[in-house]
Amino acid sequence: MALESKIKTIFWEVNEADAPSTLPGEAARGFSRMVDQTLLPYEYKYVDIKTGDAMYDAIQTMIVRGAPAIGVAGAHGVALYAQEISDKAELLKKCDYLESSRPTAVNLRWAIEQQRGVIKSGGTPEEILTALRENAIKLQEEDIAINKKIGDFGAAVVPKGATILTHCNAGALATVGYGTALGVVRSAFANDPTVQVFADETRPRQQGARITTLELVMDGIPVTLITDGMCSYFMKKGMIDLVVVGADRIAANGDAANKIGTYTVAIAAKYHNIPFYVAAPLSTVDASIKSGEQIPIEERSHEEVTHINGKIVCAPEVNVINPGFDVTPAELITGIITEKGIFQPSEITSSMAL
Amino acid sequence: MALESKIKTIFWEVNEADAPSTLPGEAARGFSRMVDQTLLPYEYKYVDIKTGDAMYDAIQTMIVRGAPAIGVAGAHGVALYAQEISDKAELLKKCDYLESSRPTAVNLRWAIEQQRGVIKSGGTPEEILTALRENAIKLQEEDIAINKKIGDFGAAVVPKGATILTHCNAGALATVGYGTALGVVRSAFANDPTVQVFADETRPRQQGARITTLELVMDGIPVTLITDGMCSYFMKKGMIDLVVVGADRIAANGDAANKIGTYTVAIAAKYHNIPFYVAAPLSTVDASIKSGEQIPIEERSHEEVTHINGKIVCAPEVNVINPGFDVTPAELITGIITEKGIFQPSEITSSMAL
Repeated sequence: MALESKIKTIFWEVNEADAPSTLPGEAARGFSRMVDQTLLPYEYKYVDIKTGDAMYDAIQTMIVRGAPAIGVAGAHGVALYAQEISDKAELLKKCDYLESSRPTAVNLRWAIEQQRGVIKSGGTPEEILTALRENAIKLQEEDIAINKKIGDFGAAVVPKGATILTHCNAGALATVGYGTALGVVRSAFANDPTVQVFADETRPRQQGARITTLELVMDGIPVTLITDGMCSYFMKKGMIDLVVVGADRIAANGDAANKIGTYTVAIAAKYHNIPFYVAAPLSTVDASIKSGEQIPIEERSHEEVTHINGKIVCAPEVNVINPGFDVTPAELITGIITEKGIFQPSEITSSMAL
Repeated sequence: MALESKIKTIFWEVNEADAPSTLPGEAARGFSRMVDQTLLPYEYKYVDIKTGDAMYDAIQTMIVRGAPAIGVAGAHGVALYAQEISDKAELLKKCDYLESSRPTAVNLRWAIEQQRGVIKSGGTPEEILTALRENAIKLQEEDIAINKKIGDFGAAVVPKGATILTHCNAGALATVGYGTALGVVRSAFANDPTVQVFADETRPRQQGARITTLELVMDGIPVTLITDGMCSYFMKKGMIDLVVVGADRIAANGDAANKIGTYTVAIAAKYHNIPFYVAAPLSTVDASIKSGEQIPIEERSHEEVTHINGKIVCAPEVNVINPGFDVTPAELITGIITEKGIFQPSEITSSMAL
C-alpha cells in the first residue's frame, strides 16, 4: 500500500510565456522546477532551472541530490540544452558535460544515455527537442511508479512495529516524490502506523539531519535523529529491527555504493545480526563493472568536513580527506529491494533480465 | 620516550592576594586554572575556578572534560570547597554533590573518594584544607607521570610509520597535560616522526574536530580529520594501522565505556582485523562492577544533536536520544594500555594488584 508524500522534488513545467523563443521549433518551451535542497531544513522552496548550464550547477552544488533525482535532473538537463542548441554533435557534447557533474551515481549516466539514444535516433531539431522533453517527463513519471513498487516489495520484510534505521536521504527528496529506502518506510507505515524511523545525521553534509527528518515530519512518520556513531549503541540495545538505505551504484556482484558512512552501518548491522537492505531502482545497477572496487568515489570539498553552516569547527591547519561515498560489499547486504522484487546481491544482474 | 606537550590543561595555582581570607586557617588560598574547552578551537584561554560550586559547573558544562582531567578537577573542587567550608559533614556532602556533576567517568568518583579519605582522616579544618590541597596537587602531578608511562608502554605496539585512528579526545586536553590515547601517540611520535593520526570528529560535541586536531597541530603531530562514519572506508583501504582510544570507565571484565561512537569504531576495527587498544590509567577501572552493562550512561541535552554552533540542523519536530557514551565489549579490545603495562581485558582487575 502506498502512502502519498506531500513532497514533489523535481518536475518539468511547461511555460511558453516564460521561455525564450529564439530557439528551434515551435514546441512549447519548459523548465525544470525542483526543491532547492541546499536550503533545507530552513526553507522548503522551489527553484526553476531554465538552462542546461544551470542544471549542471544544480547537480554539482547539490541543489538536487539523490541518485534517482539526479538521473531525472540529467534527463531534464539534456532537454534544456536542446532548447538552446540545435546542433546534434554539440548536444551530445553537452550530454558528456552534464554527466561529469557528479561521478558516483550511475542513474545520472543511465538517464543521459537514454537521452543520447533519443538524439542519435534522429529527426529535425524540433522533433528531437520534443522527444527529449517527452522522454524526460516519462522518466520522471516512471520514477514514482518504480518507487512505489520498491516500497511495496520492501514493506513485506518490515516486521510489525519495526524501527528502521536509515542513513543519508533516500526518500521523496532523493527521487521524484516517493523514495527508495523511505519508499519502503512509506509503504510499511501505510500498512502499520507503529513503524518508526531512526535517521543517522550523515556527516559531513547532514542529509539525514537536514532532509530525512524534514521529509518524515512533513509526512507524519515518527523519526528520531541520531549521530552516525550511535548506530551500534541502539543496535545493541535491540532498538533497531532493520536497516534500509539507498544506493548510488550497484556493481554486477551486488556491491553497493552509497553515501559515506553506509559501510560502517552495514558492518555494525552484521555484528548485531540485524538485516541490512539496499533499496534502489534497477537503473542503479551498473552491470558493466564486476565489483564495487571499480566504482569511482567522488572526493568532495574539504570545507564540507571543516565547516558547518559556514563556521570552521576544527584547527585550520588540519589535513582532510572527504570521500563522498563508500562501498558496502555484497556479503553485508541481506537483500536488494527493486521494482521487480527483492534479490540476493549475487542475483542482481540476472534480475534485470526478468 | 616522552614528547613534552605545550599544553597544560588544569593546574592548581596558589595566589594569596587573589583569594578571600574569611575562611579557616592561615594557609595560602588557591584556585584551579584550566583551559576553557568550550571555546576550542577558536580560543585557547585559561579560566580560573575559585569556588567549589564553580567547579561543579565547569565539569558539568564541559569547560573541563576527559575522564582523567575531571578526576583532577574533582580533587581541586573538594579543596576549593574546603576553603569555603570548615564543617566536615558539610564538606562530605559537597563531595557527593561534585561527584554527581557527571555520571559516567569513574575517575571523578575515584579522585573524590581519595579526598573523602583525607577529610575523614581528621585534623583541624586548617589541617584538612592543607591536606586536601596537597593531595589535589599530588593527583595532578601523578597524572602526567602516569600518562607518560601509558604512552611509553603503548608506543611499543605502534608499528613504524603507523597511522593511528582515535575517537574523541583522550589527549593532553583530557588529562593534566600528556594524554592517554594521545599519550601513546606522543611517545610513538617521539620515537618515529613518520607516525600520524586520523581523528574522528566525534559528533555530537565534536571533541575530535575541536580539540584533538588543535592539540596535535599545537604539538606538530600530523593529523587528518575525518567524519565518524568514514572510519571503515579508510580501514578497508589499509590506511589505518591501529585504533587507540581512551576510556571513562572500565568494568572488571574489561568492557570499556568511552565517548559515544567508540563501540562502532571497535566493531569496524574487528571486521578489518585492525588492533583496537584502550589507553587509560588504572584509576579508570571500576572493579566493583562485573561488566559494562552496569556502567551508567549519561543522557545529554538534545540540543547537542539538533544544534551546531547555536544553529538548528534538522526539522525542529524530530525526536532525539543523546547517550554521551557507549560500552565497547572486552571481546573487541586487543589490549588495555595502563601505567603498569598492556593487559588483556580479562586481566585488568588482577593487573591492579601488581
